[in-house]
Amino acid sequence: MIDGSILIGSETRRTNETFAGRDAASGATIGPAFCEAGAADVADACALAAAAAPAFAALSPEGRAAFLERAGEEILAIGDVLIETAMAESGLSRPRLEGERMRTVNQLRLFAAEVRQGYWLDATIDPALPERAPPRSDLRRVNLAIGPVAVFGASNFPLAFSVAGGDAASAFAAGCPVVVKGHPAHPGTGELVARAMARAVTECCLPEGVFSYLPGTGNALGASLVGDPRIKAVGFTGSRSGGLALVRLAQQRLEPIPVYAEMSSINPVVLLPGALAENAEALGAAFVASLTLGAGQFCTNPGLVLAIDAPDLDRFVAAAAQVLERSAAQTMLTAGIAEAYAKGVAALDANAAVRRVAGAPGSGGALFETTAAKFVADAALGHEVFGASSVLVRCAHAAELSEVVAALEGQLTATLHTGTGDDAAAAEILPRLAERCGRVLANGWPTGVEVTRAMVHGGPFPATSDSRSTSVGTMAMSRFLRPVCYQDIPDPLLPPPLQAANPWRIPRRVEGEWTSN
Amino acid sequence: MIDGSILIGSETRRTNETFAGRDAASGATIGPAFCEAGAADVADACALAAAAAPAFAALSPEGRAAFLERAGEEILAIGDVLIETAMAESGLSRPRLEGERMRTVNQLRLFAAEVRQGYWLDATIDPALPERAPPRSDLRRVNLAIGPVAVFGASNFPLAFSVAGGDAASAFAAGCPVVVKGHPAHPGTGELVARAMARAVTECCLPEGVFSYLPGTGNALGASLVGDPRIKAVGFTGSRSGGLALVRLAQQRLEPIPVYAEMSSINPVVLLPGALAENAEALGAAFVASLTLGAGQFCTNPGLVLAIDAPDLDRFVAAAAQVLERSAAQTMLTAGIAEAYAKGVAALDANAAVRRVAGAPGSGGALFETTAAKFVADAALGHEVFGASSVLVRCAHAAELSEVVAALEGQLTATLHTGTGDDAAAAEILPRLAERCGRVLANGWPTGVEVTRAMVHGGPFPATSDSRSTSVGTMAMSRFLRPVCYQDIPDPLLPPPLQAANPWRIPRRVEGEWTSN
Repeated sequence: MIDGSILIGSETRRTNETFAGRDAASGATIGPAFCEAGAADVADACALAAAAAPAFAALSPEGRAAFLERAGEEILAIGDVLIETAMAESGLSRPRLEGERMRTVNQLRLFAAEVRQGYWLDATIDPALPERAPPRSDLRRVNLAIGPVAVFGASNFPLAFSVAGGDAASAFAAGCPVVVKGHPAHPGTGELVARAMARAVTECCLPEGVFSYLPGTGNALGASLVGDPRIKAVGFTGSRSGGLALVRLAQQRLEPIPVYAEMSSINPVVLLPGALAENAEALGAAFVASLTLGAGQFCTNPGLVLAIDAPDLDRFVAAAAQVLERSAAQTMLTAGIAEAYAKGVAALDANAAVRRVAGAPGSGGALFETTAAKFVADAALGHEVFGASSVLVRCAHAAELSEVVAALEGQLTATLHTGTGDDAAAAEILPRLAERCGRVLANGWPTGVEVTRAMVHGGPFPATSDSRSTSVGTMAMSRFLRPVCYQDIPDPLLPPPLQAANPWRIPRRVEGEWTSN
Repeated sequence: MIDGSILIGSETRRTNETFAGRDAASGATIGPAFCEAGAADVADACALAAAAAPAFAALSPEGRAAFLERAGEEILAIGDVLIETAMAESGLSRPRLEGERMRTVNQLRLFAAEVRQGYWLDATIDPALPERAPPRSDLRRVNLAIGPVAVFGASNFPLAFSVAGGDAASAFAAGCPVVVKGHPAHPGTGELVARAMARAVTECCLPEGVFSYLPGTGNALGASLVGDPRIKAVGFTGSRSGGLALVRLAQQRLEPIPVYAEMSSINPVVLLPGALAENAEALGAAFVASLTLGAGQFCTNPGLVLAIDAPDLDRFVAAAAQVLERSAAQTMLTAGIAEAYAKGVAALDANAAVRRVAGAPGSGGALFETTAAKFVADAALGHEVFGASSVLVRCAHAAELSEVVAALEGQLTATLHTGTGDDAAAAEILPRLAERCGRVLANGWPTGVEVTRAMVHGGPFPATSDSRSTSVGTMAMSRFLRPVCYQDIPDPLLPPPLQAANPWRIPRRVEGEWTSN
């Protein structure tokens, strides 16, 4: 069922150059030798994708929704081997991966529902005004798919943000063929899902180029994919350096294209005095639970805590320390990630501006603390350490806390904990947090990203390379659409969503108001 | 009333370095010496804009709409001196400029109406599901203004695409302060409008930083504006080289920002055989009218005509030649533009791959022709010559015409003329044209861009630097907005559009359906 193949449309293909899958816990080689896709494979996948693009883009909402749902069924039909393979390759737990599989399938189903509903087309009609001087033409606008999309699988979500994850699902929903560059940390998992996707394409009688899968380890593979002139947009979740490299490549093309890179975020958590007074111990314990969830390998991991110095803050730290000491170190996704985490924590240990206040080496995480002045003075303290590491900034007073917030880079999330007496401070700080992130939350924890219509998993640079979008939730489709206006086009030549008879029965905005016909 | 000042918020300011305004027809110096804004002016304007941003973004729809309408009134109140100044500086005619003024004012009014209606906020509410396992948080999404926007005035629309033109109006509508880099070809016109805008800011009691105006001639001014860290997006209409330079500058910033550059387009017009058979002469005359409108200085000027070789095509060329010979050369916007036009036409005259078939030197324009093979082989033939110059590609048959279409770069517009018997060809070619442009039109001419909700003045690279947007029409606002999700935020801390009571009475999408409460 897993043989290490490359999937170019309906063709499985092999190369001589291969790489090994690894058991995340032991480092042992597992699975077959996996083929390294090369430039020729990229070219063939992109050619098929380009050939498939017009027909796939023109598919009715029902046709595309059925494909998304079928893809979900095929993923479920893989059975337990998917969970077992992902557990071995990622070191993540069974419950986490079973939950992630359900999330992946529900994500495909939600996109199907959103595609059927039709608002995403943003069909807008300004009828002709022949009596006006000068007369106004008939003007109709609709969103079209942007073309083939390159998707880079993420290491930390082998299912929900990889081969059939949020980027791929949203691109499909928008009507774009997808070429996936599989993540080398979970090649067996990737191949299982890729084969399921290829089956869904076949079963829905879609052109084979709608989906291709390129496993591989080298940067050259990703570069040739982003550089292919038939690729029209890129979805990526990973490191800041990786994301910025793709942005640069995309900008250097003869035809520059958008890159949606979700890169780095330390997800500040602000603990206001009233919250600490009422709940210091519970907050400390809940903070550590969020910090250490999945070995801290979430983009939304709380890597920064801001609070005003007070005895209640010491209670928070003591409670966090107590829970952290009892927590055990967890297997990380790859040896490279574990090494980078150890290095990041060691750098903080060696930095005189911070001191470790909780989480001894060997425990499940590390909490450092520093002052506001030192945090603002040293940009390195604001850089993400991927894993269960966080920095507490003790601010002398509210003004200093505001200065730290003002100095923050763009973030995926920002969290505010409030209690009695915090209303004025909360009202002052909440808009400042919203200015700097894609999602602001109160009295909760940033880990756990719901897939809904209102979700934003995005934010100002460097959280992402494009703050106008999200990589989670139905709005993610908008990344892969562009508007086209049709002026005085005879009805039979209009695309169905703009035709007078509205054959797809989608909502349309006519002279400014949404109508159902 | 025009003294050559720089406007930094409510302050008028002077510098020692100045430049001259020019009469477009005579080249004579007109008006006062105009101050060259410098780096300190940029810094002050951006500081004021950043200070004004939160309050301006938080303004109610009614408050912002009132400002847009007031701006329109102030522009009308300038009176005839605005038209006279613009006529002298641009060489454009009185009727054209009076029409452009009305378009500018109506554009501001349409944005006001769109702001009041509230769909642009895209307020989306997914209520909490406390009974679900695990429970779902309350999730609410709304669009926020992206922050201060730099706008570069365009030479060819001294009113509708300059100081208070489409870019500025859409940025204001989105809630973004604007810093305008005035176009040096119409500094008097620019200053008149800038003073009107500053008055509107004062009269609406808005923070002064909502609008600043920086006249100047050098590239350094634009570069320091785009490089200022407080600027969060850029709107530009102009040349491909100018637009790409701004994109590069914006990408090199510590925090890269989006640049919406509307750059170059040759706006292909496809004449199908039936249309030529029925209407060759009328089409030839109408084509020349569109080609020579405003001395051909429109982004949507029809610079490329595609047709299958046939005697009817000769009738079209003959009719076009007849009208073109009778047309007189018009004053161009600037000496530089006239020189570039002369150079572009001379290069075509010198290119053995094309020959001039209509429009002798000294007439109102020039029409060249070539073959499909030669056009596809020489990329230079597909480059824009700004002004009344067009290339006719004689295709041997339908397949060759399709090849030319497939070889086209991204365009602002594409036009299809159809007649009896063209249905099959039109159905085949229309989607191919739509893939390559922002607006496709039938049986009309691309010049004349209506400001409506359905309009798209955009398109794939190099027509623009971002095909997901438009610079004309209400959708232009989306360029300056980004979504933020609010999770479990107590109601009083939510921004008004997301509060339970919906105090702004805007439509909101609740659990997937638009509702009015």
